[in-house]
Amino acid sequence: MLPEEIGEQLGAVEKTLVGVAEGAPRPLAAPVHEVLTSGGKRLRPLLMILSANMGEPDREALVSAAAAVEVLHTATLIHDDVVDRAESRRGRPTTVAAYGREVAVATGDYLFAESFARLADIGDPRIVRVFAEAARDLASGELEQFRASGDEVGIEEYLRHIRMKTAGLFKAACVAGGTLGGLSIRRIDALATYGQSLGVAFQMSDDVMDFVGEPGVMGKGAGSDLAEGTITLPIILAMQEGNAGLIRKVLRTPRPEKALLEAGIEAVLETRAIAGTEERARKEIETALMELELLPAGPERDVLHMIASEVVGRDA
Amino acid sequence: MLPEEIGEQLGAVEKTLVGVAEGAPRPLAAPVHEVLTSGGKRLRPLLMILSANMGEPDREALVSAAAAVEVLHTATLIHDDVVDRAESRRGRPTTVAAYGREVAVATGDYLFAESFARLADIGDPRIVRVFAEAARDLASGELEQFRASGDEVGIEEYLRHIRMKTAGLFKAACVAGGTLGGLSIRRIDALATYGQSLGVAFQMSDDVMDFVGEPGVMGKGAGSDLAEGTITLPIILAMQEGNAGLIRKVLRTPRPEKALLEAGIEAVLETRAIAGTEERARKEIETALMELELLPAGPERDVLHMIASEVVGRDA
Repeated sequence: MLPEEIGEQLGAVEKTLVGVAEGAPRPLAAPVHEVLTSGGKRLRPLLMILSANMGEPDREALVSAAAAVEVLHTATLIHDDVVDRAESRRGRPTTVAAYGREVAVATGDYLFAESFARLADIGDPRIVRVFAEAARDLASGELEQFRASGDEVGIEEYLRHIRMKTAGLFKAACVAGGTLGGLSIRRIDALATYGQSLGVAFQMSDDVMDFVGEPGVMGKGAGSDLAEGTITLPIILAMQEGNAGLIRKVLRTPRPEKALLEAGIEAVLETRAIAGTEERARKEIETALMELELLPAGPERDVLHMIASEVVGRDA
Repeated sequence: MLPEEIGEQLGAVEKTLVGVAEGAPRPLAAPVHEVLTSGGKRLRPLLMILSANMGEPDREALVSAAAAVEVLHTATLIHDDVVDRAESRRGRPTTVAAYGREVAVATGDYLFAESFARLADIGDPRIVRVFAEAARDLASGELEQFRASGDEVGIEEYLRHIRMKTAGLFKAACVAGGTLGGLSIRRIDALATYGQSLGVAFQMSDDVMDFVGEPGVMGKGAGSDLAEGTITLPIILAMQEGNAGLIRKVLRTPRPEKALLEAGIEAVLETRAIAGTEERARKEIETALMELELLPAGPERDVLHMIASEVVGRDA
């Protein structure tokens, strides 16, 4: 596949997403349109398109499935924001902030159903199953992480949460792509490991950026995980090494004041927690890149390589 | 199919639902178990089982699909209760009341995904599509009804809402059953109309019971639609005929006091609104029963007939 063909297929996904927004019933039209065209990176559709084109996918099925994974991802973001009471995402008000809880819950449900309607239309139950299982893990992971807020969370538990919450959909996108492309089980397995490791590294990198990213660029304030009591790897590592008492105090204070939050961020930054998290993310990326060696050389593999290389140290 | 076989298949659905609860991840185990074993009537699984057994379904696929429709139905109830801030259902605290919004949103999402994972396992994309489309309509219907709260709603709009919100899943259960049974398109169409008319009558009957039912038996207080600003057919008819000003006042008052609410209920009951709603429900049931004539005679058809006959004037 030529690079311009990748772009062409992503363009078709974008058109399909606009079609989903235009097809939404009246009271949902505005929130659906906003969330589907708010500048997501379309990373999951891209992973699916690249994975599929290592084989010989049916183009129409692929574009529809790639749009469906973005719709599913968007549905989960909307519900996550309801759960987390998040005010903004990608520098814009969240659906729950702009329209209230009622609209946000219903919009998420609608997009969830829309995603499975599209996946069903492809006519391959394996694709539906891959995403239904990923969605199930996603809901469990989100809740497990929420329930663990403020508690002591170990590295293993953190890894378990982010595998379910973030990496599962990356993996599902790669597996569904490989399936649609008709790849061998062996190659689909390699794509699965690539997707999972990439997703874990992606989440770790996101967790780092919550401490070092620019609030304006990130669309979220620095230290928001600390403020919300969400235990991430930088926080776990910082508590092992630094002022655990202070960090614990910030985690357990609902809506901590600016001075307290900043002291907490400082307590994390004065340890090697950020470097340690980046180191672990790099190891995940090494695993991802090793798996790529099992896949056929070509432009798809090159782009998958590039995506993985850019995750660590990525900016907005 | 003998009556004891219907019972046997419903028993297998019940076991499957317990299995779903036992398979839920730890933080979801308690809420999932409670909602799946809280004494639902299993009407949608029953409709599917009866429809399917007019043909020759694969028993395992049927039981799994029948459990999936109940799981999907339960997921939508949980999210409806989040949207409506409902305190109790079937005489028990709702998931949102017992566990909070975070757990309720995630539990609904988990059950939604679980339902589609089961449907995918059956291996027939038509079944997934039927339920994905019903779920999409359900989310739209719930939101349209919510957005219309407090507004003037006409009968046509009310019918549109309840077709999407309630009747769609009845219809989907019948269509999926007919499909699994391998029935002809003509017979599946008859089941679709039966299911839709039954669902509309069921909702009308529910709306009547909100005025005349016993609060203890219903698990919800009398007049709750009026109190929440939800416009139902009894309310529409009462406003056409009776003290529209008073009823409108109750509808537009958030959390109306007991005296005001009781005056509103009285204003509805002193009109022919309840009788008029029951009349319309009976007409829907007549349509449903006429469609049954197009289906093969036998115990399945007899039970479908009985279910429809019992909807009007049903108790808890």
